[in-house]
Amino acid sequence: MGLIVQKYGGTSVGDIERIKNVARRVAEYHARGDRVVVVVSAMSGVTDKLIKMAKEIMPLPNEREMDMLLATGEQTTIALTAMALQAIGVKAVSLTGAQAGIVTDGVHTKAKIMNISPKKVHALLNEGHVVIVAGFQGETPEGQITTLGRGGSDLTAIALAAALKADLCQIYTDVDGVYTADPRIVPNARKMDEIAYDEMLELAGAGAKVMQLRSVEFAKKFGVIFEVRSSMNNNPGTIVKEETKSMEGVVIRGVALDKNQAKITVLGVPDQPGTAARIFKALADVAINVDMIVQNTSAGAQATDISFTVDKADLLKAQKVIEGLKSEMGLKGVQADEKIAKLSIVGVGMRSHSGVAAKMFDTLAREGVNIQMISTSEIKISVVINLDRAEAAARAIHAAFIG
Amino acid sequence: MGLIVQKYGGTSVGDIERIKNVARRVAEYHARGDRVVVVVSAMSGVTDKLIKMAKEIMPLPNEREMDMLLATGEQTTIALTAMALQAIGVKAVSLTGAQAGIVTDGVHTKAKIMNISPKKVHALLNEGHVVIVAGFQGETPEGQITTLGRGGSDLTAIALAAALKADLCQIYTDVDGVYTADPRIVPNARKMDEIAYDEMLELAGAGAKVMQLRSVEFAKKFGVIFEVRSSMNNNPGTIVKEETKSMEGVVIRGVALDKNQAKITVLGVPDQPGTAARIFKALADVAINVDMIVQNTSAGAQATDISFTVDKADLLKAQKVIEGLKSEMGLKGVQADEKIAKLSIVGVGMRSHSGVAAKMFDTLAREGVNIQMISTSEIKISVVINLDRAEAAARAIHAAFIG
Repeated sequence: MGLIVQKYGGTSVGDIERIKNVARRVAEYHARGDRVVVVVSAMSGVTDKLIKMAKEIMPLPNEREMDMLLATGEQTTIALTAMALQAIGVKAVSLTGAQAGIVTDGVHTKAKIMNISPKKVHALLNEGHVVIVAGFQGETPEGQITTLGRGGSDLTAIALAAALKADLCQIYTDVDGVYTADPRIVPNARKMDEIAYDEMLELAGAGAKVMQLRSVEFAKKFGVIFEVRSSMNNNPGTIVKEETKSMEGVVIRGVALDKNQAKITVLGVPDQPGTAARIFKALADVAINVDMIVQNTSAGAQATDISFTVDKADLLKAQKVIEGLKSEMGLKGVQADEKIAKLSIVGVGMRSHSGVAAKMFDTLAREGVNIQMISTSEIKISVVINLDRAEAAARAIHAAFIG
Repeated sequence: MGLIVQKYGGTSVGDIERIKNVARRVAEYHARGDRVVVVVSAMSGVTDKLIKMAKEIMPLPNEREMDMLLATGEQTTIALTAMALQAIGVKAVSLTGAQAGIVTDGVHTKAKIMNISPKKVHALLNEGHVVIVAGFQGETPEGQITTLGRGGSDLTAIALAAALKADLCQIYTDVDGVYTADPRIVPNARKMDEIAYDEMLELAGAGAKVMQLRSVEFAKKFGVIFEVRSSMNNNPGTIVKEETKSMEGVVIRGVALDKNQAKITVLGVPDQPGTAARIFKALADVAINVDMIVQNTSAGAQATDISFTVDKADLLKAQKVIEGLKSEMGLKGVQADEKIAKLSIVGVGMRSHSGVAAKMFDTLAREGVNIQMISTSEIKISVVINLDRAEAAARAIHAAFIG
């Protein structure tokens, strides 16, 4: 018996029958005496449908209004989930992010959780309720509704687990756990039993879709051990936790392919101190996350080109920002390329094994895949390659390193 | 130039194109210098879809959770409407009922507005914003989301008009105004230029679908003159205001048919003081509105039957309440009849003209329509008749009194 936070993603609550399944699972934990907090996402497809409606009105809708709009998705699910529990005799009550005490900053559509006041959740748990909390959303201290960005429901769950000092945090999803690669792309991919926070972080950053980067960062920071598992069966999932000595035996834990990146090349950037800073500060000011950056300046050149990658969703906005700097900075032009992908390999074992990069580049060369950009960390190597060859490249890399 | 509250119903915001139409109309008022508050309903069909989902989970969903669920409908519309205004260059901001300062009691699904703190709306208007407020919803002082019941968006608009001391309140709907009868049933029905609050009240109470009873009551109480008009054209609508001397010339202002009532007959009610009170208190305790009540006790009888009508939506709940009293009160049984309709005629002119009831009953008799229940007020006569004959009866009554 303990306090459990369970998070169910959009597929797990995708229709009424699935919501009833979630309720039955929650009821089992409740029946054995656990105090259960359930965090749910919007039913699958709902958020996309809302975004589509907004974009029919204007291509770049106001972000405060987007949050007002998108927050309805999770609010719908919490009410239905609470009803589904009540229907099978379990005391349950739903709370919006705001009602659950989730306070965020004011960066609409990508808000950060500032703090959580778990008083109300604790009070309701003490009364014997299962508490259903809307994931993905919060409220500023001024009472504005905010959303945390895609994957924000995981963050809600992990932050709540930390704030409530939960004994267990389970992230239920539509896959059995964290895989060595996306099984839809790499048929040989297999489920891991455990993975270190840092590996999970690099995989998430590299585009593995299981979890958002900052949910894992948050878990690492607050030491929240969590399990990624399926809501469709009772198989054990993947435990995400602090790195252990035994993990180093595995050189490459996983392969990730991110097809959701786009590349922007800024042409003719004057070769002066501070120019790169101005470009990336302008992007940061509008909360665009830049991933990889490459700049190569020839000796004696007056100007240079800078390439970087952003989420495809931010491409239009990023282009606008750079266009806005064009005359002021004397830039020559902006090129955008959506036809790219980022392929990464991750493993804490990389620290104690050499030649990993060479083997990766060699494997790609033998596949005839051209490398456009390279970026490395202590436990990760990423390359940007052509989108058309990306899946074949992922399979070759998985075969070379994992099997 | 003044402060205008405009309310747009579900059909008027039924899809993205219609929301854009609403935005264009609002923008015209804004451009001529008016300060505009826009109250919107859920897009047509949305509330019904949400209710359907809830009922797939359980027939009588928890009402707090229903409010949590239904409030998302209007929240979606306010965000989209604000975006549609911004898309055509008008400063606009959306507010949920809670954010707009609409404080209600805690009777979920049928909450009453306790007060409105218009500070935030005023502040946003003063900054030049069009303020879009979610109709139909509010928040208790404890922070619970509530809804005001069907038609609650009208109430939001009129209550806001009163609280903001608006110069004008316009209720936009899918018809040109208030008709002498439902034109889909009575082809001869015509639009009225004006109508007294009391007539509108009786018509609304009699099932005319244009507006909810308590919206009109609220308008009357606070002297909010409002116009019911179409969002599809620029025709003048119907002005609803305090009764004037000239209105008395019209004996019957309108005919209303309510097919949304159901009749419950309680059999074998002991003929003792207080028995009726116990039945109707039990219904009131669960916020069921009882409309007509008929009791006929024969001299010397030990027990009697009591019949009353409720909204069809409340029938199941009302039956359960009465069943719950059965053994305790020694009742013989409960009968429910959904196949009834209430036909009413309304007019302040009735006060100064006699023989109106006789003419009504005579008209029905000549149509071969049997009268099951009769109820009258100073300016209204209502009868409960068989549902099958109801529309023919309405046409005959309209022809006899109005033309």
